[in-house]
Amino acid sequence: MTSTTAAQPGTDQARPEGAAPAPVLILVERAYGPAAGGAPDFREADPSAAQLLVTDFVATRGDGVFETLGAFDGTLANVGPHLDRLTRSAAMIDLAGPDHDVLRAALEAAVAAHPPVPELTVRLSLTRGVEGSGVPSCWIHARVADDYAPARAGLSVVSLDRGLPTTAPASSPWLLAGAKTLSYAVNMAVLREAQRRGAEEVLFVSSEGYALEGPTSTLLVRLGDRWVTTPVDAGVLPGTSVASAFALLRAEGAECGEELLTIEQVREADAAWLLSSGRLAAPIRQLDGVDLPVDAALTARLGDAIAGRA
Amino acid sequence: MTSTTAAQPGTDQARPEGAAPAPVLILVERAYGPAAGGAPDFREADPSAAQLLVTDFVATRGDGVFETLGAFDGTLANVGPHLDRLTRSAAMIDLAGPDHDVLRAALEAAVAAHPPVPELTVRLSLTRGVEGSGVPSCWIHARVADDYAPARAGLSVVSLDRGLPTTAPASSPWLLAGAKTLSYAVNMAVLREAQRRGAEEVLFVSSEGYALEGPTSTLLVRLGDRWVTTPVDAGVLPGTSVASAFALLRAEGAECGEELLTIEQVREADAAWLLSSGRLAAPIRQLDGVDLPVDAALTARLGDAIAGRA
Repeated sequence: MTSTTAAQPGTDQARPEGAAPAPVLILVERAYGPAAGGAPDFREADPSAAQLLVTDFVATRGDGVFETLGAFDGTLANVGPHLDRLTRSAAMIDLAGPDHDVLRAALEAAVAAHPPVPELTVRLSLTRGVEGSGVPSCWIHARVADDYAPARAGLSVVSLDRGLPTTAPASSPWLLAGAKTLSYAVNMAVLREAQRRGAEEVLFVSSEGYALEGPTSTLLVRLGDRWVTTPVDAGVLPGTSVASAFALLRAEGAECGEELLTIEQVREADAAWLLSSGRLAAPIRQLDGVDLPVDAALTARLGDAIAGRA
Repeated sequence: MTSTTAAQPGTDQARPEGAAPAPVLILVERAYGPAAGGAPDFREADPSAAQLLVTDFVATRGDGVFETLGAFDGTLANVGPHLDRLTRSAAMIDLAGPDHDVLRAALEAAVAAHPPVPELTVRLSLTRGVEGSGVPSCWIHARVADDYAPARAGLSVVSLDRGLPTTAPASSPWLLAGAKTLSYAVNMAVLREAQRRGAEEVLFVSSEGYALEGPTSTLLVRLGDRWVTTPVDAGVLPGTSVASAFALLRAEGAECGEELLTIEQVREADAAWLLSSGRLAAPIRQLDGVDLPVDAALTARLGDAIAGRA
């Protein structure tokens, strides 16, 4: 596998002191396997220039899938689980699974092209491509992570109905529950609704009243010595972070597993977190106005485990 | 309001005989009102060149709204209802309503820039814009319409669960039922599911069993002398075509209105159509394997009414 490097917009030589470094954009032109003749599989491109046609299915239908990874001190976390989930999401929208070796190399190239920072947000997108072309579009965008310190200190969360029962994935797979698609308008709308209610985040609830997941995060709940996350077959994303958290907790003797909890059970839990690749472990300090205990030291350890620092 | 014209990629001077003319792309830079200094509100651009940043919210979240209009013999149909619906969809995702005069002029410029054809598909997109910019992106893409003759002869349709109850718009507006967003991955997934079942189109059904709409069309049902479409407050798009159909039918003395029908009632109806701006009136010739009567002459008259030819 080979790659070319363009004008290196990610270097910080011309960067004014104090300004954030420019993002890095990698266009992955061989997401389905290396070229036979040694042509580059991916190349760096100018992230401040237009790169997408208006007839790309992502622009006409939100028709694609994505993953957001974190890189901490220059090292990507949970690459394998993210690539596995991308392939799973792609299959759910009848898109062939991309070549993981190419994508892994392209992800690492994006991180390497970016000036060193403690936390980098690396977004991998795969779309159905330009209408009529039959060729998916794929790119990687890496930028300095937002300041997640407030979220890691504790989130005020409201529960909002997702409208679907937990049986939807089995009975109606075309509703794409559990696929990480680029059709995330509802995931954004619920965050605005949360803000209108004076909260910062959302916990989706199934039509039967079960706690599901956040719009961009996985639920982790502590019930005494038991640690619980939502079953994937209930229509949530397979969390890439929760496995790291479970590994830490199991090493300390805790019981961890998938279990459906009602939203009332979460409100009465000993603690709860929303896990994601960027914010890592964000404790729920309030759910629907009910205070939950926050353990800052444990939260930090969970975060380190997810970031691969543990 | 003013406009500029670029290289005129829509002209057919260099077009090989028999090839379809190139599409026309208009970038609308002042979708929220004309510039004070007389700067152009929109301009023609090269549709074969990249125009979108990967950080446009349409590419990261499918976060935008759209309308697809038809132009027949050079005249756009139902512009007012389409612009009203765009503004309604925008409001549902907390996006300000654009300037209708600017958009109308830009739509007309797109049609004028395209070589004359009997049927043109004109797509108007409005997104939340590039992340951090706070400025929505807006463009219009006009191309020769697909061949809709087969659809107008009759469609084989399957009903598929949409998962949501008809009460969702009132109880859970954040689910965006009835908004025409660019998050249409599910609307595309259901069409692939229909194909797997040997059908061509889909009629969505609510979780209570009511017939709703197609993924890109409005339901019209004939029950003797009564003509019925789905109530908008059940979570469907306000159809831009059904008003034209109702006007024709009412002029002939028919009773027309909004009414919830079960999917069984539609299967037993005297006739049913899926209405849309491109295909116009497409009769349902089979629903879930049950044959429905098709009236070709009436279908043609309904189509002419929707196209503004009546």
